[in-house]
Amino acid sequence: MLPVISFVGRSKVGKTTFLEKVVAGLKQRGYRLAVIKHDVHGFDIDQPGKDSWRFLQAGGDIVVLSSPDKMAMVRRPEQELTLQQLTALVMDGVDIIITEGYKGEDRPKIEVFRSDVSDKILSPKDELIALVSDKPFDIDVPQFGFEDVDGVVQLIEGKFLNRPAAEDIYLSVNGRDVQLKSFVKDAFIKTIAGMVSSLHGTQEARQIKLTIRLP
Amino acid sequence: MLPVISFVGRSKVGKTTFLEKVVAGLKQRGYRLAVIKHDVHGFDIDQPGKDSWRFLQAGGDIVVLSSPDKMAMVRRPEQELTLQQLTALVMDGVDIIITEGYKGEDRPKIEVFRSDVSDKILSPKDELIALVSDKPFDIDVPQFGFEDVDGVVQLIEGKFLNRPAAEDIYLSVNGRDVQLKSFVKDAFIKTIAGMVSSLHGTQEARQIKLTIRLP
Repeated sequence: MLPVISFVGRSKVGKTTFLEKVVAGLKQRGYRLAVIKHDVHGFDIDQPGKDSWRFLQAGGDIVVLSSPDKMAMVRRPEQELTLQQLTALVMDGVDIIITEGYKGEDRPKIEVFRSDVSDKILSPKDELIALVSDKPFDIDVPQFGFEDVDGVVQLIEGKFLNRPAAEDIYLSVNGRDVQLKSFVKDAFIKTIAGMVSSLHGTQEARQIKLTIRLP
Repeated sequence: MLPVISFVGRSKVGKTTFLEKVVAGLKQRGYRLAVIKHDVHGFDIDQPGKDSWRFLQAGGDIVVLSSPDKMAMVRRPEQELTLQQLTALVMDGVDIIITEGYKGEDRPKIEVFRSDVSDKILSPKDELIALVSDKPFDIDVPQFGFEDVDGVVQLIEGKFLNRPAAEDIYLSVNGRDVQLKSFVKDAFIKTIAGMVSSLHGTQEARQIKLTIRLP
């Protein structure tokens, strides 16, 4: 299972700034990572007059710009994409996914807390794996000050990255996530990996992506 | 097969402006579409100081921003993504993909030509399905003036959109496109569609996406 860790916390506590440093720390240790930021208020990545904006404005549902060293995609989905859909989109070739936000999802969480913004922790205790805070709490999870980026990076590495990758499958049908029981997962993985391994000239598969359209 | 039509032509002939109008025309007729622009010189969608830029700068390999009505992804791939990879990324839920650029790919092409920029058509004749030009050429494809956006939209609709969708499959293994012969395609589609149809509670599948990671 690809690790997905969420940094959560109220607005204005400094999540983005802290997360930026964590990303740099993980990168320095050689990991490839994806960051998914949940921005409920919207964002303006596509600047008026630029190509991506022009094509979206004209009525494109998805606009992609691709150059040799960068790819960008902007999409207006009919419904907000789920974290699982976004995870499937970015999972190839990264070791870990870090999210900013998604406090409502059932994922391991690191809460960023500042006492001048709030006085209560918002994460459920069973999902909280660490707290970044300007004051100590009497709770049973590792706590870090805002200066201790390295401590947080080490915790993430020790808990999620120093272990062999396990099999994992993501399935969506007609744009909706499908949850598979573990024996069904296994059947899908074995069947498809088997079919792929029989293809002439295919090296050992570590990552398989399949998209099928049916009439 | 999802139709993929490429608008090609030398720089400064007005491809983006013409394509913008074609996109609007197709949208008006109710089609869902993706636009993929090949920008060999790079582009600066992520503005310095904005979140996507900060996370990429810090070392993120992929950064996603997601809000209820918009999703954006910026990625620094190790190698330039192929048109086939980009196609797989956007193919769910669109009726047609229009590209700007990708003149080297073997796809149906509409060339945009302006006589003050060049004096020769650059597309191979067997791939050219129409010409948008400020002067007539003695060639056997439909030709349109720059004002005749509607003519081009009608041609695309008649040639690619007024027909039932056919089955289609895209496979990538370890990030590389795999071309399948037609009987192998058929075996994959039938097997996987069969497995999916046996899942409890799954409606009739029109679109299946599968991502598998193996240790």
